Amino acid sequence: MNAVPKVVADALPASRKIHVGGTLHADVRVPMRQIALQPASGEPPFTVYDSSGPYTDPDARIDIERGLPQLRKGWIEARGDVECITGRAVCPEDDGLASAQAQVLSFPNARRPLRARAGRAATQLAYARAGIITPEMEFVAIRENLGRRPGEHTRRDGQDWGASIPPYVTPEFVRAEVAAGRAIIPANINHPEAEPMIIGRNFLVKINANIGNSAVSSSMAEEVDKLVWAIRWGADTVMDLSTGRNIHTIREWILRNSPVPIGTVPIYQALEKVGGVAEELSWAMFRDTLIEQAEQGVDYFTIHAGVRLAYIPLTAARVTGIVSRGGSIMAKWCLAHHRESFLYEHFEEICEICRAYDVSFSLGDGLRPGSIADANDAAQFAELETLGELTRIAWRHDCQVMIEGPGHVPMHKIKENVDKQLACCGEAPFYTLGPLTTDIAPGYDHITSAIGAAMIGWYGTAMLCYVTPKEHLGLPDRNDVKTGVITYKIAAHAADLAKGHPGARARDDALSRARFDFRWEDQFNLSLDPDTACGFHDETMPKEAHKLAHFCSMCGPKFCSMRISHEVRAQAREQGLREMAEKFRAAGGQLYVPAGEEN
Amino acid sequence: MNAVPKVVADALPASRKIHVGGTLHADVRVPMRQIALQPASGEPPFTVYDSSGPYTDPDARIDIERGLPQLRKGWIEARGDVECITGRAVCPEDDGLASAQAQVLSFPNARRPLRARAGRAATQLAYARAGIITPEMEFVAIRENLGRRPGEHTRRDGQDWGASIPPYVTPEFVRAEVAAGRAIIPANINHPEAEPMIIGRNFLVKINANIGNSAVSSSMAEEVDKLVWAIRWGADTVMDLSTGRNIHTIREWILRNSPVPIGTVPIYQALEKVGGVAEELSWAMFRDTLIEQAEQGVDYFTIHAGVRLAYIPLTAARVTGIVSRGGSIMAKWCLAHHRESFLYEHFEEICEICRAYDVSFSLGDGLRPGSIADANDAAQFAELETLGELTRIAWRHDCQVMIEGPGHVPMHKIKENVDKQLACCGEAPFYTLGPLTTDIAPGYDHITSAIGAAMIGWYGTAMLCYVTPKEHLGLPDRNDVKTGVITYKIAAHAADLAKGHPGARARDDALSRARFDFRWEDQFNLSLDPDTACGFHDETMPKEAHKLAHFCSMCGPKFCSMRISHEVRAQAREQGLREMAEKFRAAGGQLYVPAGEEN
Repeated sequence: MNAVPKVVADALPASRKIHVGGTLHADVRVPMRQIALQPASGEPPFTVYDSSGPYTDPDARIDIERGLPQLRKGWIEARGDVECITGRAVCPEDDGLASAQAQVLSFPNARRPLRARAGRAATQLAYARAGIITPEMEFVAIRENLGRRPGEHTRRDGQDWGASIPPYVTPEFVRAEVAAGRAIIPANINHPEAEPMIIGRNFLVKINANIGNSAVSSSMAEEVDKLVWAIRWGADTVMDLSTGRNIHTIREWILRNSPVPIGTVPIYQALEKVGGVAEELSWAMFRDTLIEQAEQGVDYFTIHAGVRLAYIPLTAARVTGIVSRGGSIMAKWCLAHHRESFLYEHFEEICEICRAYDVSFSLGDGLRPGSIADANDAAQFAELETLGELTRIAWRHDCQVMIEGPGHVPMHKIKENVDKQLACCGEAPFYTLGPLTTDIAPGYDHITSAIGAAMIGWYGTAMLCYVTPKEHLGLPDRNDVKTGVITYKIAAHAADLAKGHPGARARDDALSRARFDFRWEDQFNLSLDPDTACGFHDETMPKEAHKLAHFCSMCGPKFCSMRISHEVRAQAREQGLREMAEKFRAAGGQLYVPAGEEN
Repeated sequence: MNAVPKVVADALPASRKIHVGGTLHADVRVPMRQIALQPASGEPPFTVYDSSGPYTDPDARIDIERGLPQLRKGWIEARGDVECITGRAVCPEDDGLASAQAQVLSFPNARRPLRARAGRAATQLAYARAGIITPEMEFVAIRENLGRRPGEHTRRDGQDWGASIPPYVTPEFVRAEVAAGRAIIPANINHPEAEPMIIGRNFLVKINANIGNSAVSSSMAEEVDKLVWAIRWGADTVMDLSTGRNIHTIREWILRNSPVPIGTVPIYQALEKVGGVAEELSWAMFRDTLIEQAEQGVDYFTIHAGVRLAYIPLTAARVTGIVSRGGSIMAKWCLAHHRESFLYEHFEEICEICRAYDVSFSLGDGLRPGSIADANDAAQFAELETLGELTRIAWRHDCQVMIEGPGHVPMHKIKENVDKQLACCGEAPFYTLGPLTTDIAPGYDHITSAIGAAMIGWYGTAMLCYVTPKEHLGLPDRNDVKTGVITYKIAAHAADLAKGHPGARARDDALSRARFDFRWEDQFNLSLDPDTACGFHDETMPKEAHKLAHFCSMCGPKFCSMRISHEVRAQAREQGLREMAEKFRAAGGQLYVPAGEEN
């Protein structure tokens, strides 16, 4: 427990880190991953979105005790809105009731926090509303274009969803979406290490991975390793949901080493500070916890301010009651004191804190359904109305907002969730957990929920919170984190395809061409998980020569449908069958019958 | 290779086999699985659909060399339509070019085949049209009710899809659906070992698992073991896609020991008989292969008769050409001879064979898309039109028909597939492979395809063909078979829920109640895969006592949202909060503010 964490730091197969420069801001350099393809194929290198940070850059010097470079430091300071403050003193209870043997190494490279000057708003929303295109906005615009340049885009082939996605994302489009509240750029001024990213339904669908220790298991070193591991496979943001000891210190290590935004649920730490007794929570100590975390650099807070006293009875007849941990903490507090939630009552004060550090809101759905039986019920939708009310308050304070959503929802009830959320919350981005489309498969809830996640992403959800195979059963380990992230990258990408996001299909097409050409290595390298793809291939055909084989183990060497297709194509060229196809189409798709072949 | 196969034969945890008797036919006894729940819960045992056959019945005597009991023998004979024939003599080439060392043990308990008497149709469709409710139909009706009795059903809560599903499936409803061609009961008269099941969109969504050796690997013993393993986890039918040696003999072992319908792609064996040279295929030898397989008892044939010469050019500009193995074999034959497919030209003769043994058609989609880029293209839909034409021909011959569908389709193009299939093919059941909703995740194609499978099942597909993690990479092993089956049970069940199938939600609710009550063992036992669920739980909380714990490793013992919900519920009872909830609803859902709590 007392050692400096070790992390995986190397490039993915056949990949190198490239940087695309800004034009509005000279010091904007957006990292992307370029995958080299076999030279004989005639295919150019393929560029993909890259959330993995410097860890996959062999040229970067990784020093966990020092933390990542402060990428955004100059941008934040140049705006002249912030000042360096002494900050809140760290108290022993910030790490819970840590006994001596459980103490962990403090982060050695602490620094003083920034805060907005009195009367100033340091949020991306405030800048967007003022018409300012920040470096963060230009960074995000370049990133969303996946390495494409203006004019280079695949044909849009979508539905109504995402209809406003432009073929090429401009910095001005980013600014306008943030200003409208339709997108957020979670970017605490005290987390300058983060590479800016955007969450909004007119951008690529993002995914979040949860990490964090619990009272039962796992250590600080494990959590930092899980962070680096999760972003290696594509997590766009990471939530630290620690509930055990040393919460403050673990979070410091995570933040200083995280190139992605970090979210938390501050009520978890607050509960540890009062020894797990929900009734003893108070606004004063919760407020203090918010400031503690804002000063550390947390980029977004889950705040369950929609769990109002009056809604709690609506859950009494549910099959699974209240399943949100934060929601149940607040419900217990409300019932014990028989009074309105202090989060709801003090919401404007919370906004003032978020405004001073640019902490985005992730308004928690404390009353989300925990089973198919409870989906879309009165409790859930009553809370959603309140989240809409809170969204408008936060916007008045120049705070960025997204809204959390369920949970457990059968397929035919998913779309209603998005429609209601967009209507209630003024199109603020939606951020959902799955949803799981059935309750009968514990051990496979990454899959039950990937179905719902892909669909809700298509319908307009901006970020999907992953679910791992351990959901409902235990704490995810490293393998579960990877499985959860890859599964959710699949769901998010399937949603991007269905929304017709320009450029999303390019990767499918590149991989399919590699598959059709029997370029096995390219197929692996273009995939979300090259290690697993290559490993599965090698289980039945392990020799290096087999990676050049024009067949696979399914059909064997004697007959292969892909190879036959090549012969068909060659023959088509010879026989001018392509002309026949054109004739077929020209005749309005009527069956073309070659002369003498009628039957 | 030369040993009698060994298979897993034991009950699933806390489960016992029960049989529900028929009323129209006294000898109909439908097996179901009853899961015992903890007595203290007050919950009755929970009954689920059971495709696993006698292998999970501790009272059954399993003897692989003898085969399963001939459940349907008496029913088939009693109809007086069939006669016992000498049958086609088995030739050495039926097992391909088997060299001496590769020979496998013949099945020791061979019997003479049955065939319909001249002029008679021995098909379930013919009986249904004649107004006869066969024992097979009554068996299916009881099975679809999942152990419920008339009047016992959960509220229907569906969409337009499945609107005609009755709350209680009657034998007459089954007959009417079969007669209309909207459902099939694959039941070759030479496979009396099979327990009848139905495929149609007004019934539970079914799943198929593919097994079979290849030229590169795997043996007969492995394939019989995979069959028993696949049905243990819920496969409703199994396709034997063997393409290596000993195809005839492996199939005999599989059929004699299979309680589920077995499907094949006869062109695969035909190709082996001509040494893998597609050009040398002929109608005569293909016809002989159909008779060989029909006499063995194959329940459905994939026939790629829709791959017409004129459609082949439409694939020339595709990203991945023709990816169906059967489709590419026929394309190669057509191009080599530059003439129309012999399957298309001789389709009526194929119908005569299928009619004589009640082999159902599974009309193959030889031109299905093999990539997102090729989805819903001209080649695919041209073939679908022809499949509709062939459906009507097969129906004229009293043959049962289902239609195979893709493949690789992005989410927004899935529904069009179902709509067009229903329209083109007169509502014959649709049977799709996935579809995969993105191409970028080889190694995870069970997941990319489960998303599409769940959706297409909801939209009206009757059976889903599984995809394993090894798709595109290698031959599935035992673990892959299980992963594929469980993943597809999830997709099928999610579809049943969304369709509002009566009774489907009962299992979700029972499991959710167990979860909320901290009945860990019940939660595992009600799940699709109790071994995995229990194993994951035990990784972090291994002690037996932890299975009684009112918490899990996610939150730990100090604070648990589920436990809090129980407290909320208890308090709600005390404070009469349930009344408050009613007041809330009575007031039209307006916020109820307790006196003195306004803010």
